[in-house]
Amino acid sequence: MILQLDLNIFQIASVAIAVLAFGASIWLYRWVASQPSSNKRIAEVGRLIRSGANTFLGKEYKVLTRFCSVAAILILVFLPGPIWKGNILDNVQMAVAYLFGTVFSAIAGKVGISIATIANIKSAEAATKGIKPSFMSGFRGGAVMGMSVVGASLLGVTLVLLLTNKTMALLGFSFGASSLALFAKAGGGIFTKTADVSADLVGKVELGIPEDDPRNPAVIADNVGDNVGDVAGMGADLFDSNVASMAAALVMGVALDRANGTTMNAAMVFCYAAIGLLASIIGVMTARMRDDGSPTKALNSNTYVTCVVFGVLTALATYLFNFKWQIWFASTIGLAVGVIIGIASDYFTDDTKKPVHEVAKASKSGPAFTILSGTSYGLMSTLPAMVGIGISALAAYKICEPLGPGYAMFGISMAAVGMLSIVGMIISNDAYGPIVDNARGLVEMGNLGDEALEITDSLDSAGNTVKAITKGFAIGAAGLTVIALLGAFISEVNHAAEILGKPLITGFDIIDPLVFLGLLVGAAIPPVFSAMLMLGVDRNAQRMVAEIHRQFKEIVGLKEGKEGAVPEYDRCIEIATIGALKELVPAGLMAIFATLIVGFIGGVQAIGGFIAGNIVSGLIFALFMSNAGGLWDNTKKYVESGHEGGKNSAAHKSAVVGDTVGDPFKDTAGPSINTQITVVSLVASLTATIFLAFSLFG
Amino acid sequence: MILQLDLNIFQIASVAIAVLAFGASIWLYRWVASQPSSNKRIAEVGRLIRSGANTFLGKEYKVLTRFCSVAAILILVFLPGPIWKGNILDNVQMAVAYLFGTVFSAIAGKVGISIATIANIKSAEAATKGIKPSFMSGFRGGAVMGMSVVGASLLGVTLVLLLTNKTMALLGFSFGASSLALFAKAGGGIFTKTADVSADLVGKVELGIPEDDPRNPAVIADNVGDNVGDVAGMGADLFDSNVASMAAALVMGVALDRANGTTMNAAMVFCYAAIGLLASIIGVMTARMRDDGSPTKALNSNTYVTCVVFGVLTALATYLFNFKWQIWFASTIGLAVGVIIGIASDYFTDDTKKPVHEVAKASKSGPAFTILSGTSYGLMSTLPAMVGIGISALAAYKICEPLGPGYAMFGISMAAVGMLSIVGMIISNDAYGPIVDNARGLVEMGNLGDEALEITDSLDSAGNTVKAITKGFAIGAAGLTVIALLGAFISEVNHAAEILGKPLITGFDIIDPLVFLGLLVGAAIPPVFSAMLMLGVDRNAQRMVAEIHRQFKEIVGLKEGKEGAVPEYDRCIEIATIGALKELVPAGLMAIFATLIVGFIGGVQAIGGFIAGNIVSGLIFALFMSNAGGLWDNTKKYVESGHEGGKNSAAHKSAVVGDTVGDPFKDTAGPSINTQITVVSLVASLTATIFLAFSLFG
Repeated sequence: MILQLDLNIFQIASVAIAVLAFGASIWLYRWVASQPSSNKRIAEVGRLIRSGANTFLGKEYKVLTRFCSVAAILILVFLPGPIWKGNILDNVQMAVAYLFGTVFSAIAGKVGISIATIANIKSAEAATKGIKPSFMSGFRGGAVMGMSVVGASLLGVTLVLLLTNKTMALLGFSFGASSLALFAKAGGGIFTKTADVSADLVGKVELGIPEDDPRNPAVIADNVGDNVGDVAGMGADLFDSNVASMAAALVMGVALDRANGTTMNAAMVFCYAAIGLLASIIGVMTARMRDDGSPTKALNSNTYVTCVVFGVLTALATYLFNFKWQIWFASTIGLAVGVIIGIASDYFTDDTKKPVHEVAKASKSGPAFTILSGTSYGLMSTLPAMVGIGISALAAYKICEPLGPGYAMFGISMAAVGMLSIVGMIISNDAYGPIVDNARGLVEMGNLGDEALEITDSLDSAGNTVKAITKGFAIGAAGLTVIALLGAFISEVNHAAEILGKPLITGFDIIDPLVFLGLLVGAAIPPVFSAMLMLGVDRNAQRMVAEIHRQFKEIVGLKEGKEGAVPEYDRCIEIATIGALKELVPAGLMAIFATLIVGFIGGVQAIGGFIAGNIVSGLIFALFMSNAGGLWDNTKKYVESGHEGGKNSAAHKSAVVGDTVGDPFKDTAGPSINTQITVVSLVASLTATIFLAFSLFG
Repeated sequence: MILQLDLNIFQIASVAIAVLAFGASIWLYRWVASQPSSNKRIAEVGRLIRSGANTFLGKEYKVLTRFCSVAAILILVFLPGPIWKGNILDNVQMAVAYLFGTVFSAIAGKVGISIATIANIKSAEAATKGIKPSFMSGFRGGAVMGMSVVGASLLGVTLVLLLTNKTMALLGFSFGASSLALFAKAGGGIFTKTADVSADLVGKVELGIPEDDPRNPAVIADNVGDNVGDVAGMGADLFDSNVASMAAALVMGVALDRANGTTMNAAMVFCYAAIGLLASIIGVMTARMRDDGSPTKALNSNTYVTCVVFGVLTALATYLFNFKWQIWFASTIGLAVGVIIGIASDYFTDDTKKPVHEVAKASKSGPAFTILSGTSYGLMSTLPAMVGIGISALAAYKICEPLGPGYAMFGISMAAVGMLSIVGMIISNDAYGPIVDNARGLVEMGNLGDEALEITDSLDSAGNTVKAITKGFAIGAAGLTVIALLGAFISEVNHAAEILGKPLITGFDIIDPLVFLGLLVGAAIPPVFSAMLMLGVDRNAQRMVAEIHRQFKEIVGLKEGKEGAVPEYDRCIEIATIGALKELVPAGLMAIFATLIVGFIGGVQAIGGFIAGNIVSGLIFALFMSNAGGLWDNTKKYVESGHEGGKNSAAHKSAVVGDTVGDPFKDTAGPSINTQITVVSLVASLTATIFLAFSLFG
């Protein structure tokens, strides 16, 4: 059976499914909000967290408004070409698309924070009734974020193309999403680790008071950090990847369609992305915890449901609409490899597997051995993902190559779309983590009893395990997306080259020293970028530790926990906020300027190498840092649960050092690299025309 | 003035200068040996170190004999082509050249160990007379190694080409040097860090006895380690780089000469390499310590003398023999960039500069912050070198490109030759480090008094500073060399392609998914390789710590230092030796097999990407690990000298953790990556013909 449908139909269907996702999001929001909550202490702490998160978001968005306004003006003047030389409408559309991208991402982040700071309270209180209701509040809270982020990305991409009919505007939209993600992820990452590290350092290490103890002035900031870093930041990150993968696929799909006089390839992108969202909606809405009470199983089994639904529905659509089966294969391979990368990440971080056991054992000899063994396993963990991404790209390319010129790279972009198809489910799982982490804190601070604490502990631990998988997945998806963006980059460059009457680019030869220079410099950016962020956390944490010390010294009775001795939580939140914003700007600008400098020196060829080097080293460092961090976190928990000497043993002290090192690795630097890669690729694609017209050696 | 000389004259001159270097080496050896020594205790400890080093070397060479024999047989059967298909003589020559390379490298290592274990005694005893004689014994001891390594490499390369007249045989010779270097560097690196870490862990940390205390059963092994790791290993490493750079330049130079009917380019390679050695001889023989008594200045100023002599003499030769000035420029740029990279490494590790001060400050908050800040600066330190290598390659390429086809890549290879021209001086400086480090231990064990200890401390500290510079230099040189090897790889592939009637390779396009797959997998090898080595150190140290514990428990009176209670030093040396050899083999084979697997799957294109990815990520990890390790080492010393609380403060405890993490970084994993890169490039070049004839997707 073959249906001939217009591209518009697919676009309208995409809008409809995006709206459906918003509907699901609203329903879930209401469901969570309607859950009972009565404990006043928890409500008060919850209010503090919420207001702290809003403080951060408010200040961050203020800084971003300034940054994005400047960027928008630069785009208006220079992109896609100098405004005085080209079509003014193009530049206006580009600038508006860019702003559109930032606003969509900002709204999605805001929604996420808003629900997360409700769901944490609900999940905490539900923990007194049992694991199932507590899980459902946490999961459905996360799902609100998942549905709105993916709904917004699909809606945004569809509207931009419908309204402008220009793929270049898609890159503008994507760049808007990226620049917001860069700041949200890096800024949130610095905030959350500043607070986490300082709270632990003074509370657990110096004073020996438990985690989440309300006497600790940094405890609210710590809980705020989970929200702004993991919920808002991670949401912005995956919004960005998702938009970028669709944009890359559409740039190439539309180019193919133009060349062949069809609309089939663009239609396919919309169709697959919409089906991915639909599958995620189904996965999210049917998620339940079984009677075995295992939150990990509940989270994972629904991810698999989503994968299967996606595979089946896209096959059906491919049959119905006469799409190319080769592309369906490419897309499915992408999804499968994403799952495999996730499983590999899980192996290196799971506390039932060898790496955690070995690191725990090495910890007995001292913290240096925790670091050395953890670093080693973290480095090893990069191999499966690198091989997986390489093979999926190769397979997608080779399968689609026979379809004709241009299809090979399009196949890679569709593998990325396939990998990201279940992103709605992934975000839901990921946002679940910080919500139940917060819930655990609230249970502690609200004195809800040991049973509730045990329940939230078990939910939190599942969150950590799933987080490792979803992070691996997010990194893999970013990798494949950026390879696809490299294809989009060439597409755009050649479009410009035709206009300028310059020779077309056919590729980037490693033997060309311009390409090689780009490769070397591009590869150096992720380590430098992550170093800048980590030093930022370091500096910021030092400021905050000083403040905590001050409070314990100056507020009478705080250390002893006397009635009425309340810490100044706000001061800590303020320090973390201001510091985070101050530290993230240089790192972000460094990445952007490095791209521009390489472009102006070496031209398009150097930029091609630069992007490739950036992807390769970015993937390695992102994987290494995320996995090593997760490994250390779980090693600490593993030792705390009684292994290798248990709590307060020598191994435990070493494991705590490992965890402290791992925190900025896994929650600040590692995941921010993802966004850094996308930003660099998009800056390169957008400014390609300029480098084509002018560069020192190119 | 223009002299027309035959290629043979240059080759004979090279042999003559190599012989001159051997003469210098013998003179220096005799000078060192003739220095007075009378202390019996020192003589006894010196004997123990010497015999321990010989034990290690003996066992290592036994393992290597087996490994290299197998490799030689495989080469005989398969390379350059299957023996049943090609010319038997080719295969025999290749196998013999390979064995030749391994033997030359082994002899140079043996000579180095032999003099280092004499010079340490002489330098220790001379310390009672003043800093100048002590310095001279240490430096001239190192210079014996420097002169013999570079003499051997020049002699070997010249003889191989003279006897076979085949550039392919040069790659075989180079591969021999590489396979020995891989094992010498990695094996020695595992040995030295096993001993160092275990000695510190039990001695300094657990029992609180000073470094180099003779009661510690690991103390001799620790001193042996300095010799086998830093002297023999590093010598093999630079022997390897030096041979590889000459081989790459000759492969391309001879190809150019054949195409143009001249012998000028090959002559130039010999001429420049010989002048480099001559400049190093002059630099070494004129090295003196000034009256200011600064060993760092003495070491550095002579490096600069060598650079200037090289620049002037090569300019003169270029004028005299009518060589191309563009190539002289390329070569000089290489040397200049090498020096710049060294200086950048120095900035990140010098204890008068900001990074060390910041890490020391952060250490006050605990070991996690030592690690985080040190990691960050280590990551940042990669940028200047990556940019420097990229720019020097670009400049060399662009300057030589107008000379005609093939000259551009030849220019890069000559930049590498230029960078490595002063390698004789570099090795001398580098080998000086472990000699005076040993001398310090001997002064301590022989109770030569505080003044002598202070002198050797100051010599040792200079050794550490210079080591950071020479390591940066060695990594930069390896980077440029391997880029040149990529050129040699293409040369060889196309030579084979012509014979097989296959299309010629013009380059490696990043957009080709085979190249990209290679890029991703190649980039993952250095992290995995270094992780395997570090885990090896970890496992080995655990075994050794258990042995030290056993001895302190079972040998009565050892802990208290009773007369007659002597530890079993031999057992520790044995454990370190056996463990090191056991741990290094899998890592080395992993790198080689990964190359072969990628080649058989993706063919020549995938291998091109694989080499590039391997270079890029290898450089980053080598720089990161070497510099972070050096930074932590100097931070510890900086704190110990009274900053941030001084010895036994919280900052000091943290700094010790940093140093322990840094040790395997800087002495095992980091510098071994150099060799890993060269091995991979050479395996790829040698097996290129096979992949051309058969591969799954290529």
